[in-house]
Amino acid sequence: MKKLAVIGPGLLGGSIALAAKDLPGWSVAAWARREEAVKELAESGTVALASTNLEEIATDADLLVLCTPIGVMPEIGRQLAAIIPGHAIVTDVGSVKAPVVEQLSPLFEKRGTFIGSHPMAGSEQTGFQSARADLFRDSVCIVTPGAQAHPLAVEALSRFWDALGCRVRLLDPVEHDEVVALVSHLPHFLAAVLVQTVSRENPAAFDFAGPGFRDTTRVASGPPGMWTEILRSNRAAVKKSAEAMIEMLQETLKLLDSPSSGGDLHMNEFLAHAKTERDRLRRTS
Amino acid sequence: MKKLAVIGPGLLGGSIALAAKDLPGWSVAAWARREEAVKELAESGTVALASTNLEEIATDADLLVLCTPIGVMPEIGRQLAAIIPGHAIVTDVGSVKAPVVEQLSPLFEKRGTFIGSHPMAGSEQTGFQSARADLFRDSVCIVTPGAQAHPLAVEALSRFWDALGCRVRLLDPVEHDEVVALVSHLPHFLAAVLVQTVSRENPAAFDFAGPGFRDTTRVASGPPGMWTEILRSNRAAVKKSAEAMIEMLQETLKLLDSPSSGGDLHMNEFLAHAKTERDRLRRTS
Repeated sequence: MKKLAVIGPGLLGGSIALAAKDLPGWSVAAWARREEAVKELAESGTVALASTNLEEIATDADLLVLCTPIGVMPEIGRQLAAIIPGHAIVTDVGSVKAPVVEQLSPLFEKRGTFIGSHPMAGSEQTGFQSARADLFRDSVCIVTPGAQAHPLAVEALSRFWDALGCRVRLLDPVEHDEVVALVSHLPHFLAAVLVQTVSRENPAAFDFAGPGFRDTTRVASGPPGMWTEILRSNRAAVKKSAEAMIEMLQETLKLLDSPSSGGDLHMNEFLAHAKTERDRLRRTS
Repeated sequence: MKKLAVIGPGLLGGSIALAAKDLPGWSVAAWARREEAVKELAESGTVALASTNLEEIATDADLLVLCTPIGVMPEIGRQLAAIIPGHAIVTDVGSVKAPVVEQLSPLFEKRGTFIGSHPMAGSEQTGFQSARADLFRDSVCIVTPGAQAHPLAVEALSRFWDALGCRVRLLDPVEHDEVVALVSHLPHFLAAVLVQTVSRENPAAFDFAGPGFRDTTRVASGPPGMWTEILRSNRAAVKKSAEAMIEMLQETLKLLDSPSSGGDLHMNEFLAHAKTERDRLRRTS
């Protein structure tokens, strides 16, 4: 029986615990900061053991998943490095990987192995109340092994995410951050700025929002503290992506001014290409 | 028995026909340009009469709904103005209202009444195959009476949309175009530009797109020809909204560079305000 330790059972951690509970050969324990969270978790019957005592949860863990805010991971990592078994694999679910891998990997050089993960699942909701056993089904999980990670550890971690229903992809941590800046962090930033633009220009317009606006801005309902941390941790890639987007917005706006038939044609081509790319996404996911 | 004439039974027109079919006191006829569309419609059992002959459909209609592309509405309007009954109400479902009302209203000064409508429903799909009787349920329909529209006609048209499940709101046509530029046309434009930005910067990133990216860009799968027409017809308001958005993007990006604690605080406030506005939207719709 292998032991999984979920560190911070919110939306993602709770969903991992719920999904792992039914995996053959695994027993699940969870650490939470607050007594109430431990109580809620114990009462839910999701885990074999829940505690606010990190040692109790971590000393015999085979796989530990950090699901806390990125900012507190180094401190928890330092504590874990002193108590986990030598063979333990430590991973996280943070949305930014280069700074996390850079800070966490050295902590586990002597004991255990750190490999970053980013399961690209979730919603704008938060907390164990929103956790679902099927949250990861058909989602992509990016695993970002540092140079020091043993192939066996990468393989074991990938198998774990695969068992939870993820399609696992390996990426270098820096490459990960550039990719998710484009398909996750920039879209989040845009959604928030779009809502704020409407709010500043004409707040009465919200009353006329249809399903398109609701979908386009859904992620803006995500937790502000977490997203502040993500956007700032990945600021270089986010800025690069946003600046590329601003440049293309400005270029494309000019098509609205060009003489009628030429402008129609170019705008039509632009939108048609966007549709082709977007439709392809629909088919493959 | 009142007679409804749907002119152009695609996604919106077809959904209107499907929804009106079961309204007590209404009989539904539809005009389509193509014989195959007429045949499909007749075989579906949705309408009492389908034809490519406009006269056959329009001469005894009480309410006519133009569901064609905006560009062909003036030509169809001219034909209708010669054949409809004097009491007939003509409306449309175009996403831009000022140019439509300006072009269509004068055609019906002597016979019938033109009042613009914009049911804010639909999806990225097109065609009668995607039509649904419940498409309008709980959606907002903006009705834009020109100065010449008789209050009784406005009242009758509003009742019709209400019967289809819409929440009806009246707006001046110009005000309509400014409002939908913010909550519909700009979001569409953003979705297309976001897809194109990813495509230009790093097309491999599409493989890592999660549900957030899919929702944020869903509308980019809409029909390019229709959206070219919408964006160009409403170019002044679309440009104004897009420029306001670009300005706010640039302002907000600077928060990523400001000194750590101050920047965190401001970005957190910015995202928290966006969340509050977005959450309010979720509750009321």
